[in-house]
Amino acid sequence: MATATNEYPTKAYGTSAPDSPVGPMDITRRGLREDDVLIDITHCGICHSDLHTARNDWGRTTYPVVPGHEIVGTIAAIGENVTRHEVGDRVAIGCMVDSCMECRHCDQDLEQYCVNGMVGTYNGKDLRDGTPTFGGYSERIVCREEFVLKVPDAMPMAEAAPLLCAGITTYSPLRTWKIGPGSKVAVAGLGGLGHMGVKLAAAMGAEVTVLSRSESKREDAEKLGAHAFLNTSDKDAMKAKAGYFDMVLNTIPVRHDITPYLHLLKIDGVQVLVGVIDMLPEMHSGILLGRKVLTGSGIGGLAETQEMLDFCAEHDVLPEIEIIRMQEVNDAYDRMEKSDVKYRFVIDMGSLKET
Amino acid sequence: MATATNEYPTKAYGTSAPDSPVGPMDITRRGLREDDVLIDITHCGICHSDLHTARNDWGRTTYPVVPGHEIVGTIAAIGENVTRHEVGDRVAIGCMVDSCMECRHCDQDLEQYCVNGMVGTYNGKDLRDGTPTFGGYSERIVCREEFVLKVPDAMPMAEAAPLLCAGITTYSPLRTWKIGPGSKVAVAGLGGLGHMGVKLAAAMGAEVTVLSRSESKREDAEKLGAHAFLNTSDKDAMKAKAGYFDMVLNTIPVRHDITPYLHLLKIDGVQVLVGVIDMLPEMHSGILLGRKVLTGSGIGGLAETQEMLDFCAEHDVLPEIEIIRMQEVNDAYDRMEKSDVKYRFVIDMGSLKET
Ligand SMILES: [Zn+2]
Ligand SMILES: [Zn+2]
Ligand SMILES: [Zn+2]
Ligand SMILES: [Zn+2]
Repeated sequence: MATATNEYPTKAYGTSAPDSPVGPMDITRRGLREDDVLIDITHCGICHSDLHTARNDWGRTTYPVVPGHEIVGTIAAIGENVTRHEVGDRVAIGCMVDSCMECRHCDQDLEQYCVNGMVGTYNGKDLRDGTPTFGGYSERIVCREEFVLKVPDAMPMAEAAPLLCAGITTYSPLRTWKIGPGSKVAVAGLGGLGHMGVKLAAAMGAEVTVLSRSESKREDAEKLGAHAFLNTSDKDAMKAKAGYFDMVLNTIPVRHDITPYLHLLKIDGVQVLVGVIDMLPEMHSGILLGRKVLTGSGIGGLAETQEMLDFCAEHDVLPEIEIIRMQEVNDAYDRMEKSDVKYRFVIDMGSLKET
Repeated sequence: MATATNEYPTKAYGTSAPDSPVGPMDITRRGLREDDVLIDITHCGICHSDLHTARNDWGRTTYPVVPGHEIVGTIAAIGENVTRHEVGDRVAIGCMVDSCMECRHCDQDLEQYCVNGMVGTYNGKDLRDGTPTFGGYSERIVCREEFVLKVPDAMPMAEAAPLLCAGITTYSPLRTWKIGPGSKVAVAGLGGLGHMGVKLAAAMGAEVTVLSRSESKREDAEKLGAHAFLNTSDKDAMKAKAGYFDMVLNTIPVRHDITPYLHLLKIDGVQVLVGVIDMLPEMHSGILLGRKVLTGSGIGGLAETQEMLDFCAEHDVLPEIEIIRMQEVNDAYDRMEKSDVKYRFVIDMGSLKET
């Protein structure tokens, strides 16, 4: 498998321009450093960030780009000093593949907020040689061992994939804000993140309500294990739940008015934004003066991500997925834009061999 | 003093229209109910809310209005079932004079957030007979005994007055967010609220930094006991303190961009708005995703207000005041609008006898 320079020629899917579809691309994975592992990727989930990055919606994409940061697979080789993993282990990589591991945030297991900048799984730059990082839409990946998580034994690989971004992104704020039995949690937005938020909050013992403008989500909410549904277009229903919730987990990915959700909070209740990366409209400060809390959260640290995987295994929490072939990724993007997926696409990376 | 109906004719200062200055007005205080006390007012602080209400800036004023909710005085008479106070006691009233005392918020000593609506000291409506409430720009006031706080023995009356609004408004969020030794607190805005925020946070053991656009505040900050000064127009200085603070206590009373202050916060650090009652401009959600917290806070409950008064007595924390005569109130308003006061006007109510 290794070339003369020990590099790994690797089939991938990526794009070289904002307006090009994602298609076959040959990349090279670096030869193993002493603390690296080589992973044969079995599955990769599709996150909204993938398509936003492929299309340069945030203006931060360096091309070519290979998306994918919900990666699972098995260890195929290990560097000489690797101690955490063995060949054959079922493992996973999320949104980051490196960080300085010595700043005040890394020291607190908050590598995602590394003061020196965490290295994104794709569209990032390797800290040691400055080469671009390529994501999980590929046969294999090389990664520093600390950034490789363990997939619990009981967990199916395909379903594990979305936990690495959608799962940890919703798990982390639920933990930060100490959600547990007795907590009342509302989840806004019922996509990849939102549906995990419902399942995780319920598994933590909270009373979970799904918020949606559309009555059509009521049945879905119930199926996912939500205890209640609140139609946000129904003014009377919204008024009746004013001051009711400990948390609104807001997974809506587009610009929107967050004030109605603040009204739903108890004193000291918190609205956590995890979806939107955009300007928020003007809001009146008066609502905040009632000790309503607004914050956000981004993925989770390494230890917390492992904790989340173990929690999901223990509580049998898994995402609802639709498995696709690598060749179908552009269709999947189109369907995601129409919210036509329940609830996460996962690429079976075996399909890449046919490219 | 009592009339035939046991009511108290009372000299006051107030206004009957948004564009009229505040001037002499005769009002009537109700006869004592069994749980009421009569207070001879010695001093009343002047809060920005007074002038906003007098001028109907918030569109919520019912005229005539008698402002003033930083009230201190002595008990002159008590109703037959009063147990908390005796004639001659030094007492105080803040921003509220009643609430239902039986809702879930009142039960938690959060009367300021009474589900049924707390009764404002002025521009409110008495819960039992619907009569308008008149504030502290007056000789005397009648108030339900539970809403009357004790002025600690050691505390001078004039300086006690501003604690009832400016003091508790800054004290409460410092307590809610557990500021103490080792905490790093930045205070934005150096008016009546801000200067109390500096003194209170310092007394709690925090390292206190004053934030201001204007270098002219550097010396004032030091005099008030701040440990540092940060010029918010200095981009390099702001960058150097990014991620530094546990709290930004934002007392700026006008619409402004709060994003620069969010950048100053640590992970899980909190910006508390206590001044502004206005629309906040658009803000990018991205900054919140770094687990920056935005919230607000309004005054405090009865128990917390008493705790604050006792804390100030114990730690010798008092506002900087300028004592004026009742007849000078309109000039004081004009000067407040130019931020020409260090830091709070207090009316010597003895001057009202001369009207
Ligand atoms: Zn993602
Ligand atoms: Zn770091
Ligand atoms: Zn006030
Ligand atoms: Zn109440």
